[in-house]
Amino acid sequence: MATVYLYDTTLRDGAQAEGVAFSLEDKLHLTRCLDELGLDYIEGGWPNATNEKDCEFFRRAQALTLRQARLVAFGSTRRKNIAAADDSNLNYLLAAETAVVTIFGKSWDLHVTEVLGTSREENLRMIEDSVAYLKGHGREVIYDAEHFFDGYRARPEYALETLRAAARGGADWIVLCDTNGGTMPWEIEAAIRAAQRTVEVPLGIHAHNDAGLGVANTLVAVRAGVQQVQGTMNGYGERCGNANFCQVIPNLKLKLGYECVGEEQLQQLTALSRLISELANLPPDDRQGYVGASAFAHKGGAHIDGVLKTQGRAFEHVPPEVVGNRRRLLLSEQSGTSTIVAKLENLVPGLDKRDPVVAQLLAEVKEREFEGYQFEGADASFELLAQRLLRQYEPPFNLKAFRVIVERREDGRMYSEATLKMDVHGSECHTVAEGDGPVHALDRALRKALREFYPHLDEIQLTDYKVRVLDSRAGTAARVRVLIESSDRERTWGTCGVSHNIIEASWEALADSFDYGLRGQNEGNET
Amino acid sequence: MATVYLYDTTLRDGAQAEGVAFSLEDKLHLTRCLDELGLDYIEGGWPNATNEKDCEFFRRAQALTLRQARLVAFGSTRRKNIAAADDSNLNYLLAAETAVVTIFGKSWDLHVTEVLGTSREENLRMIEDSVAYLKGHGREVIYDAEHFFDGYRARPEYALETLRAAARGGADWIVLCDTNGGTMPWEIEAAIRAAQRTVEVPLGIHAHNDAGLGVANTLVAVRAGVQQVQGTMNGYGERCGNANFCQVIPNLKLKLGYECVGEEQLQQLTALSRLISELANLPPDDRQGYVGASAFAHKGGAHIDGVLKTQGRAFEHVPPEVVGNRRRLLLSEQSGTSTIVAKLENLVPGLDKRDPVVAQLLAEVKEREFEGYQFEGADASFELLAQRLLRQYEPPFNLKAFRVIVERREDGRMYSEATLKMDVHGSECHTVAEGDGPVHALDRALRKALREFYPHLDEIQLTDYKVRVLDSRAGTAARVRVLIESSDRERTWGTCGVSHNIIEASWEALADSFDYGLRGQNEGNET
Repeated sequence: MATVYLYDTTLRDGAQAEGVAFSLEDKLHLTRCLDELGLDYIEGGWPNATNEKDCEFFRRAQALTLRQARLVAFGSTRRKNIAAADDSNLNYLLAAETAVVTIFGKSWDLHVTEVLGTSREENLRMIEDSVAYLKGHGREVIYDAEHFFDGYRARPEYALETLRAAARGGADWIVLCDTNGGTMPWEIEAAIRAAQRTVEVPLGIHAHNDAGLGVANTLVAVRAGVQQVQGTMNGYGERCGNANFCQVIPNLKLKLGYECVGEEQLQQLTALSRLISELANLPPDDRQGYVGASAFAHKGGAHIDGVLKTQGRAFEHVPPEVVGNRRRLLLSEQSGTSTIVAKLENLVPGLDKRDPVVAQLLAEVKEREFEGYQFEGADASFELLAQRLLRQYEPPFNLKAFRVIVERREDGRMYSEATLKMDVHGSECHTVAEGDGPVHALDRALRKALREFYPHLDEIQLTDYKVRVLDSRAGTAARVRVLIESSDRERTWGTCGVSHNIIEASWEALADSFDYGLRGQNEGNET
Repeated sequence: MATVYLYDTTLRDGAQAEGVAFSLEDKLHLTRCLDELGLDYIEGGWPNATNEKDCEFFRRAQALTLRQARLVAFGSTRRKNIAAADDSNLNYLLAAETAVVTIFGKSWDLHVTEVLGTSREENLRMIEDSVAYLKGHGREVIYDAEHFFDGYRARPEYALETLRAAARGGADWIVLCDTNGGTMPWEIEAAIRAAQRTVEVPLGIHAHNDAGLGVANTLVAVRAGVQQVQGTMNGYGERCGNANFCQVIPNLKLKLGYECVGEEQLQQLTALSRLISELANLPPDDRQGYVGASAFAHKGGAHIDGVLKTQGRAFEHVPPEVVGNRRRLLLSEQSGTSTIVAKLENLVPGLDKRDPVVAQLLAEVKEREFEGYQFEGADASFELLAQRLLRQYEPPFNLKAFRVIVERREDGRMYSEATLKMDVHGSECHTVAEGDGPVHALDRALRKALREFYPHLDEIQLTDYKVRVLDSRAGTAARVRVLIESSDRERTWGTCGVSHNIIEASWEALADSFDYGLRGQNEGNET
């Protein structure tokens, strides 16, 4: 079976999506995750004079050790009427020091004359020169033929001529782009056949989703023989987005039989999809194929019956586990108790599904989830809840009261202070601390109170802090959910708090985090 | 050109979507809207003994005067081993008194033996009898071949045999269903060809979206010759949903040239899509093709420049107006001077791209976005920034200081209070208010100070409040961005604040919101 290479542009084209702006730290973190998923190319950004953030990304990315993926810097062909060596944008691409560079050029004469304002001949030279210049510096060069399908529809001979220019320049790949996303699958196929008759360079596909066909056009292109597939996680991208890798990858592997990622890598897909929507701060698309929360959720009574009779085969096109997703039977208590028992396996081995505590805990979890708690990302809060119900619980501290003061003073400076009153092993502690903001001040006051009892406290680091407004339409009186992720030298755990008051929600997640983390530590007076 | 009939199942299969439950009034209202859109069939529900709401719907729907659409009652073939005339479900369908009835039956032997628990022969009789019984009562009968494509893959001869049974019964239509949504476009085409060789009854397609191919599979089926297309508005439906009419309809009309709806009807598509998401109480999918709020939103600087130079032709696959949508230019770190000039069109008509204030504003926007501001959702904050630079700015109030106190008292209750000191038109105001949380308290203290000067203040409502932790790995000391959306009776606007301190970031967005909103209002002492 022929190979197909996966080229991810979540960090560049994906960041063109409305509402998406990844921080530099997010981009570095995602690069590692995308590499672990088994992708072949990761387009990191467009380094140029007006985009310092992407230049900095490529500087910092040099320190990453990737298992398989090659990092790619993205840019355009040289400007008109200058030598490639004098084009600062091309030189920014070289300065990014990636082994692979992608440049896009114009295939549609409308763009050449009306957007670039140059001649068709100069456009061909721009393509050939730019590719040749980058090849001369030892790069693997991918040429993105922007608007290829629109150009082929409008003036086929010229569109194909631009591909020949890229081939003459020495391009390693020519990627045919449906930049405006409006091309039909049968047009994609016909244009690819024409490109195959024109150049011998391996081809790729870059599809957008404006007609709802991004995934289909990508698959049709692979069947027509292209060997590189460009896409983004969750389909993020300009306007309606790019071909969605969350469906393209499982379709390629499970339906077309390409070994593009490994079985264990495919099982990470759902978790990675959700992580990226968190980092993009967009609500996850529950209805997206394979990885959505609803993708294997069964609602109709007849469906649920059929699902149970056939272990899912009758109403699921693939088993949810293969992409790391799970089946959900909506409005069904049975699935709930099994989940609870599985979750409690460590705390109470061999717990019976019919034990009354299971039903009690399930009811408690459902009620809390209704209020907005989300235990999927907060296993530690779930365990604490279970231990409280099972009366296995002896808290390392008890809060009595706190007060947080945030001031903006007349000189414009901010001041945040937190006061805590707590009971720790029978002693009353009353501490106060300043911080960068109210939650930071609470964190510091809490550490001040606990440090004398738990000398290893400072090994607990808060590694992630997320806020989601639940009923955002309630304006400033809305309820918020805070998720905190913490780690010490050995473990990582998540906790959750919900309240109309963001300080209270933060406190709840913060307190659960220390509560859980300190249980693993000996107390000072015992060591 | 051959005709294609549009069959809507939003009210039945669409209501199977997780989180969707239309009221009876909603369904009647939507029936009228779908008729106005120009659809041919509207499937209203599944009337049976356990679904009184759908029985009532068909009773009330008889009073509707529809322009074109025919109402359809939906149900299943008779139960095993009884006569059709004795099957209460079939009689419920007749009692609905619609001219058209759709029943589904089993094409996949797995379902026949393991879900229905009957023989393959009895299943064929169930199909033929049920169709014949409904035909005998003068109905137009549509037979939905459930799981046809999975059945054809597993045991092709039997799947085709079930179609022959429906044809023998006298079905007016046979609709081939990809119930599990996992079939590839080329498999759809091959199976349709086989069905065409087997029966002479006109065929239809009913596709689901589990592999991200619902729209593509529908179009491929039409190209293969089917004459009826089933789908739902916004693609709502079980799991990942059904073929999305919001893309299927414009693709059929604009790309394949079918006269399925009129030009003016097509212009209603965007409004109807949003109405249905309102009634379903689901957030609209901004990224869906043709009708999404982002479908014609341009963000990249080079893109925006090209859009402006070619009136959209260069970067839009169809003009947004044809589906009732509109073009939007977004501001971001990828924007160039053209975007700034276009955005300032209202404030400073005829501003030159080379005016130094444009470069200054662009630099300011980029610096702020580097800090974490996001102006694409915060047009009002952008305008205020521009007006401050252009010195067109006279603020309606000036903050001198604030203090926020949040307490958790010893009885466990929360208390939030905000104190504000401001200068409003030369008067010093000093106010205090309580709230559900610190931001709510600030909001109320601010309103208290301004109400005497701006009596129409209460028309300004905060309609959305979002918080995003920017560098979440910095834990509780992370920077946060707050986005607030506000509206009065006429306008909607967005504002943004960024700080390490969530209270300060919220204050900034809140202050910008009132600053912008109050400029549209006359002051109290002037009216």
